[in-house]
Amino acid sequence: MEFFKVLDIAQVLALREGFGRVASEELALEEALGRILAAEVRAPEDLPPFPRSTVDGFAVRAASTFGASDANPACLSLAGAVAMAEVPRVKVGPGQAVWVATGAMLPDGADSVVMREHAEALDDTSIEVFRSVAPGQNVIAAGEDFAAGAVLAPAGRRLRPQELGALAAFGLLRVRVFRRPVVGILSTGDEIVPAGEAPGPARIRDVNRFSLSGLTLQAGCIPRPLGIVPDRCEALHAACREALAACDAVLISGGSSVGTRDFTVEALQAFPDARILAHGIAISPGKPTILARVGDKAVWGLPGHVASAMIVFARIVRPFLLSLAGLAPGDPEEVRLPARLTRNLASAQGRTDFVRVRLIRRGEGWWAEPVLGKSGLIRTLVHSDGLVEIPAFCEGLDEGAAVEVILF
Amino acid sequence: MEFFKVLDIAQVLALREGFGRVASEELALEEALGRILAAEVRAPEDLPPFPRSTVDGFAVRAASTFGASDANPACLSLAGAVAMAEVPRVKVGPGQAVWVATGAMLPDGADSVVMREHAEALDDTSIEVFRSVAPGQNVIAAGEDFAAGAVLAPAGRRLRPQELGALAAFGLLRVRVFRRPVVGILSTGDEIVPAGEAPGPARIRDVNRFSLSGLTLQAGCIPRPLGIVPDRCEALHAACREALAACDAVLISGGSSVGTRDFTVEALQAFPDARILAHGIAISPGKPTILARVGDKAVWGLPGHVASAMIVFARIVRPFLLSLAGLAPGDPEEVRLPARLTRNLASAQGRTDFVRVRLIRRGEGWWAEPVLGKSGLIRTLVHSDGLVEIPAFCEGLDEGAAVEVILF
Repeated sequence: MEFFKVLDIAQVLALREGFGRVASEELALEEALGRILAAEVRAPEDLPPFPRSTVDGFAVRAASTFGASDANPACLSLAGAVAMAEVPRVKVGPGQAVWVATGAMLPDGADSVVMREHAEALDDTSIEVFRSVAPGQNVIAAGEDFAAGAVLAPAGRRLRPQELGALAAFGLLRVRVFRRPVVGILSTGDEIVPAGEAPGPARIRDVNRFSLSGLTLQAGCIPRPLGIVPDRCEALHAACREALAACDAVLISGGSSVGTRDFTVEALQAFPDARILAHGIAISPGKPTILARVGDKAVWGLPGHVASAMIVFARIVRPFLLSLAGLAPGDPEEVRLPARLTRNLASAQGRTDFVRVRLIRRGEGWWAEPVLGKSGLIRTLVHSDGLVEIPAFCEGLDEGAAVEVILF
Repeated sequence: MEFFKVLDIAQVLALREGFGRVASEELALEEALGRILAAEVRAPEDLPPFPRSTVDGFAVRAASTFGASDANPACLSLAGAVAMAEVPRVKVGPGQAVWVATGAMLPDGADSVVMREHAEALDDTSIEVFRSVAPGQNVIAAGEDFAAGAVLAPAGRRLRPQELGALAAFGLLRVRVFRRPVVGILSTGDEIVPAGEAPGPARIRDVNRFSLSGLTLQAGCIPRPLGIVPDRCEALHAACREALAACDAVLISGGSSVGTRDFTVEALQAFPDARILAHGIAISPGKPTILARVGDKAVWGLPGHVASAMIVFARIVRPFLLSLAGLAPGDPEEVRLPARLTRNLASAQGRTDFVRVRLIRRGEGWWAEPVLGKSGLIRTLVHSDGLVEIPAFCEGLDEGAAVEVILF
């Protein structure tokens, strides 16, 4: 067996760099919400392609309105109107105005639009204007939204509704995105039965298959539950081999007993191109986590306790999956909510502690109420809104201490 | 035409109560992530159904270890071992210990487990214990996670990975959830062409169809884009009739010009059971928003400007859709991120202003950098991470002011 490698969180997360990311595929824009752009997209042309009015009113040369006020309105001659979707047939000269609706194309010669509320028709051919406008006012110039060649969205950006809108504005209805990583999920343990079966005495149902599948989906990946493997090294090795052939990464949960954990390491080391990268992480809960590289794929051995497995996923596995999925580093995916602790929390030095918390609104701010309980209790997660991370060098936090909550 | 009703945000949001919510359906647990529970679920039995060890070690009566220390170990007789998934055949009496692995069923008579690190085998039949344990230590008691009858999750709760896990733990593999509301999306405007077509001069592509569909999906609803309606009252009325027949709510975007806005109201009032609930909202951008009730369904007239439409959706339409979707009030869906402003912001009194912001991390906290620009520019949203809301009574905010960011 290789040297026993207990890493801290930063050391584990740094291992992301050693893994690649999935290939890309082309998708219809309708299907692309939440997907990650595989290549930068630039504006193929100016948006809008022509200057548009942003209000209902009169297209003018701004200079024709300078000095206008209620007491001293500017009188302009009405040279016509531009209908929606019409290329203006009139031009706007000095002292002239042309009616435009919101969104209409600005006529040549005009550089701004007087809102209709600030003007009044005198008769069919002349209007009074009560406010001056500046050049560009109430107009979106050609290319003001995106100029031809401007970056619409960088590679590695997760597509939100606004990116979909921006792509549609250019008629870019197919996008190249990273394909969603497929994550194999194996449960181990002789005491585990499929959730659809009655467990019988001394056995329990497979919970991690569902909680880890849900977390995998939330990370934008495709969970592939691969069933329950008995506590035998050969069985686990065979199951891993199949999982690795079909998936981009593999999660094995269970095996929190020392014997089973050894099976996992043994089963992985039986691959000729396997390397155990982490054998234990200095966190609680979640210490008995294993990370191996088999070929170019990550295989995780997660604790069997449901809360431990979820916490390790949320804080450590998820960043690996996001990186595999092609998300650019620094994308604000992991915004943490500032809050204050409702009570003192003790913590052991030398490891990072995760405390489940419930959020409570008090006046202007959020408070984090620790939800205590053993890491085998799923109830503690059902009653929580997130996690507070207590750094390894810290002996504990006082009531009222400022913390940041990882929401889940 | 009815009286012109400009409401403030609170008045508009209060109108949610007048609308119902969708019916429920039964789903496989695998399909239920993110869905909203239609009925409270209670634990049908104790979880776990039997007491389990949370560590590898020796099941004992705690009293047998009282006073044990490195200097003065307690000597216990080893009465056997419990294999995983095995109903223990041995009992634990005073002075006795039985080997158990993590997750194994606790033998009768034992009330706690000594971690194997804190004990040492003397020979095949006796061990020394170096630490005392308390009753219940390193054990999950029967029903400690959920006692039979305890609430697993209330109605109206959005199902997260941990709720899926908790349901699976009881073999509850089908859940009753609210069906996803279907939201019809209509774009209006003679200048709008489908995004797949070349717009030609003076016309632009339909952007809102994509941005509003994306927002609808993010709200857990099913967007049904219904195309582009010309700027004629009868056409819009007919399109609304079809949309109302097929959908649970309808969004009409476009028509920011006064004429088109009037069409929308007119087209809606032509339904005998229509009521215009809001004709304008005291917000910027987004003032020309219309909310009508036709039968028991909400129809929104959203501004045509892409940024305005998205902002009104994020802050006002979304809470209506979540309520229609069955989400319980108070569910922490809309957590806002506390931040500080990077610069002064002016604001008009008497209306709520929304400012698009980009998040910047500085030291311990988040700063919100305003992304300024006209509400017709989708770029401003692509470059933003969220919105800051400046209340109606406020004349503006200073650099460094504490704000809360609505993330999008």
